[in-house]
Amino acid sequence: MLSRTHQCGQLTKANVGDEVVLNGWVSVRRDLGGVVFIDLRDRSGIVQIVFNPEFSTDAHAVADKARTEYVMAVSGKVVERDPETVNANLKTGEIEVRITAAEILNAAKTPPFFIEDGIEVDESVRLKYRYLDLRRPEMQRTLILRSKAAKLFRDFLDDNGFVEIETPILTKSTPEGARDYLVPSRVHPGEFFALPQSPQIFKQLLMVAGMERYYQIARCFRDEDLRADRQPEFTQVDIETSFLSQDELLDMMEQLVVRLMKETAGAEIERPFQRITYADAMGKYGSDKPDLRFGLELVDVTDLVETSGVKVFADVAKKGGQVKALNAKGCATWSRKEIDDLLPFAARYGAKGLAWIQVKDGEWKGPIVKFFSEQEIASLKERLGAEEGDLLLFSADSKKVVADVLGNLRLKIGRDLGLIDDSKFKFAWVVDFPLLGYDEEAKRWVAEHHPFTRPKEEDVHYFDTDPGQIRAQAYDLVLNGYEVGGGSMRIYKREVQEKMFAALGFSKEEANDKFGFLLEAFDYGTPPHGGIAFGFDRLVMLITGRTNLRETIAFPKTASATDLLTDAPGEVSDKQLEDLSIRLALKAPAAK
Amino acid sequence: MLSRTHQCGQLTKANVGDEVVLNGWVSVRRDLGGVVFIDLRDRSGIVQIVFNPEFSTDAHAVADKARTEYVMAVSGKVVERDPETVNANLKTGEIEVRITAAEILNAAKTPPFFIEDGIEVDESVRLKYRYLDLRRPEMQRTLILRSKAAKLFRDFLDDNGFVEIETPILTKSTPEGARDYLVPSRVHPGEFFALPQSPQIFKQLLMVAGMERYYQIARCFRDEDLRADRQPEFTQVDIETSFLSQDELLDMMEQLVVRLMKETAGAEIERPFQRITYADAMGKYGSDKPDLRFGLELVDVTDLVETSGVKVFADVAKKGGQVKALNAKGCATWSRKEIDDLLPFAARYGAKGLAWIQVKDGEWKGPIVKFFSEQEIASLKERLGAEEGDLLLFSADSKKVVADVLGNLRLKIGRDLGLIDDSKFKFAWVVDFPLLGYDEEAKRWVAEHHPFTRPKEEDVHYFDTDPGQIRAQAYDLVLNGYEVGGGSMRIYKREVQEKMFAALGFSKEEANDKFGFLLEAFDYGTPPHGGIAFGFDRLVMLITGRTNLRETIAFPKTASATDLLTDAPGEVSDKQLEDLSIRLALKAPAAK
Repeated sequence: MLSRTHQCGQLTKANVGDEVVLNGWVSVRRDLGGVVFIDLRDRSGIVQIVFNPEFSTDAHAVADKARTEYVMAVSGKVVERDPETVNANLKTGEIEVRITAAEILNAAKTPPFFIEDGIEVDESVRLKYRYLDLRRPEMQRTLILRSKAAKLFRDFLDDNGFVEIETPILTKSTPEGARDYLVPSRVHPGEFFALPQSPQIFKQLLMVAGMERYYQIARCFRDEDLRADRQPEFTQVDIETSFLSQDELLDMMEQLVVRLMKETAGAEIERPFQRITYADAMGKYGSDKPDLRFGLELVDVTDLVETSGVKVFADVAKKGGQVKALNAKGCATWSRKEIDDLLPFAARYGAKGLAWIQVKDGEWKGPIVKFFSEQEIASLKERLGAEEGDLLLFSADSKKVVADVLGNLRLKIGRDLGLIDDSKFKFAWVVDFPLLGYDEEAKRWVAEHHPFTRPKEEDVHYFDTDPGQIRAQAYDLVLNGYEVGGGSMRIYKREVQEKMFAALGFSKEEANDKFGFLLEAFDYGTPPHGGIAFGFDRLVMLITGRTNLRETIAFPKTASATDLLTDAPGEVSDKQLEDLSIRLALKAPAAK
Repeated sequence: MLSRTHQCGQLTKANVGDEVVLNGWVSVRRDLGGVVFIDLRDRSGIVQIVFNPEFSTDAHAVADKARTEYVMAVSGKVVERDPETVNANLKTGEIEVRITAAEILNAAKTPPFFIEDGIEVDESVRLKYRYLDLRRPEMQRTLILRSKAAKLFRDFLDDNGFVEIETPILTKSTPEGARDYLVPSRVHPGEFFALPQSPQIFKQLLMVAGMERYYQIARCFRDEDLRADRQPEFTQVDIETSFLSQDELLDMMEQLVVRLMKETAGAEIERPFQRITYADAMGKYGSDKPDLRFGLELVDVTDLVETSGVKVFADVAKKGGQVKALNAKGCATWSRKEIDDLLPFAARYGAKGLAWIQVKDGEWKGPIVKFFSEQEIASLKERLGAEEGDLLLFSADSKKVVADVLGNLRLKIGRDLGLIDDSKFKFAWVVDFPLLGYDEEAKRWVAEHHPFTRPKEEDVHYFDTDPGQIRAQAYDLVLNGYEVGGGSMRIYKREVQEKMFAALGFSKEEANDKFGFLLEAFDYGTPPHGGIAFGFDRLVMLITGRTNLRETIAFPKTASATDLLTDAPGEVSDKQLEDLSIRLALKAPAAK
């Protein structure tokens, strides 16, 4: 076999005159009057190679047999193309290679789809033939960028004294949270390992172990019902530090993200990132992961409408709900139908109705206008900054429903009106998450993050009076409306941990049952610590402008958690089950 | 909390006069006449800090309460120690820090063992309290070196155009090889994922996918009965390339290993590495992973003894077995008891006896000497280089038993005689492994490596005549008697693959059943490719001079595949099993 000297996509005018050996796949083959032109493709790109019997009859005979996706080794001389045949769309378009020796390394059947960017093929076909799908340049670029992003994370963390430590994949089922994947133990019949949902416990133990700065690009597993942006196994950049404050950690992570975005997306991200409290994010954007590339903020008008004649507004206000509005600038021109079409969208998020006012021809128009006093209209006008041409949309309901409805309407209208600059990467930290949420069904407080999340010092006294008021030292990193990271400072003082367990209603025994060895570890000199985990798949998705996580993963699973390429999961032998001391317990199919 | 300015182990005379803030754990605390001296430890090392009421009564009062393994934040001034109190054993031994402010960040119970190097504590206690065990400097150094080694692998591979690609952990059970760990699927009742024994199939698919150079530091799983140097989950540096020959790949891997050893162990390794064929390794050292730090080679004397009066030698030679000898230089002085003590050792490897000859006082002595002719003694003397003072040890049996017996005796005697330089790293490639081995029980040929291993071109013709003669393009990297890496060039031509399957006795249907989608993939333009995997845990073990893999893994499992820290595996709830459509099938305990 000829030994490669250059990569296809590398050749430029600077190589003219060079004798080169190339390896690659036949992307396109054309025969023009007895001269064969092949676009030869390797990972680096494409170059045109020319087989003319005048250069070599042997090589020409080989080219004659070559077909699409055949693998070839060729050698020849780089020459400048005639000016009229220069291909400006190709990096190598100013040159071609005159082939004097060629070998077919392997033949290929005709692929089920074209090996090129932007194909329109059912995703299930692409997944079944993933090894061909990954040959397409856009998939190769994505995987190469993913590799580069991982390298950038590692280089930065290494430069900052972090130690990469692997934690177990075969570990123990955790008492709370999402469903675990289980692994039966052969050596210990009746017992099971669990695949980790995250290395959370181990990373905290590593802080107890004095490792001070830990990271790992870790595989995590959740046996949950899947959505477009979930995978049963996913990758997170898992980080934990000792002796840093929240501000010090977030500052360091910002530097990391800025470097990452510059090197992968060529984007200059300004520091410090905006920090927005959870309360403000929910209030202004109806979301704890707001898309901050545009305004269109939610405005609370509850106080202005609680005595108004709009009965639903007044009722909601009296019952402790909220009335909030969006001012869709310039949308007063929308037809009645266009406005009405918003309702089914809003209903998806729980809206029972959607009130609106058009500011048009110097007047306020719409079904509810007549129920407002002049004074009410004046104050709404002022608070909403309502001007000629605006469309005001109102939602009145519980705080949660109003946030969901207007938060999602805001995104839809922002997109429809072209307010969102897709070339922009807008990062922000959402901070001060509530520590506890009240579970109405179980009638008890539950941890919003996890039971080791550290409360803000100034809120600790609320444990005794008003646990719902306690803000956590917890933070999410949001990018363009997606959560791309999140973490918290952890509790390290025994007395705070006891208050937390008391608030969650755990007796000492229950706490020990659930978290035994971790609590024991905390007794041996636990440093102040905290950390963060970045959703690596999602980050790569956003950097590469994709909208589907599967595009960023070499061998992903479908929404029903199957691998169409290997056909996993699959049946196993009775012997295998017997070895594991389990048997199947299949339910009879349910009657339809 | 005071914000850290320096790490403990970092401070030297150059810092004298600096005001510093340190965080760390109390390693040792001594009260000398009202002045408290604490050795404060963090990941970087230890520094002595001094609390004198003259510097600060508040800080001194805090130090009074501090106990071993308490976590502290302190600030003070670096001063030079009095010459008579300089501690030459400590990097920071020329200075100490006079503390003017101190805070106890957390208290600690008394640990179950000392947090220092070289403790003699039952390993099960260390594993149960792994978070304390990992606080010991030697464990921290090992994990930090492991992290550095991973970084060096990645940097080298990245510099050489390799793309890091993650492959699935939830994948499909493979038809052959070691036992798989299985994961029941909730979504697909009765079906199972398997945890990968290696990313073998995926890395070959990535070559079909045109990724050309892939690597991954991959977690692999084998549900095998464990030994000291096995873990149910282990880490390998997994590498695959297209368009490189075996020599090109091995050459590149040598450069990688040389860099790794220089940066982690400070060792200068010479290139090229010795390459020894499998046949020579077995012949000279009785092992396919020879320790080449010393000689003491096995010598074949079958031809010299087949007609001798030593009946067992003559019989073995006639039956196609082997008679081989070791010349233990200078061991003629061993007592009869010392020599006899070798027999139980040899018996462990299958020896039924062990013949010996002492060359002593100008004579050949020993029970078998009288059965040799003078001519036979002369030729044995010449071939074995036997001189005054030597002890000759003979094994006569099948090729395999002789190799096992003398190979292991060689190691034992080498060690006993101090022939092995433990400071030396001796790498070598073992090449030309046999492609096929004959399974006497199943009466068929089986793949020694795997069914996609490429035969040497010049041996392909043996498929039709003598499959046992075919040498594979397969190679192992050995270091000081351990296999630390291995791999092969893969078959990429359909006609060779068909010959291989025919030799293994697979019909086309069987081959498709077993390897369906991979064979299908190979039809679409597979490049010539091959790869290697390094056993990362074992490599780190050898670099750090350890003899137990568990010392190199943060949270290892015991020989019975349990995690003593988290107590995994464990029982799970009936609800969890029901969700997975399985139930337990425990056997009644066997009668004793």
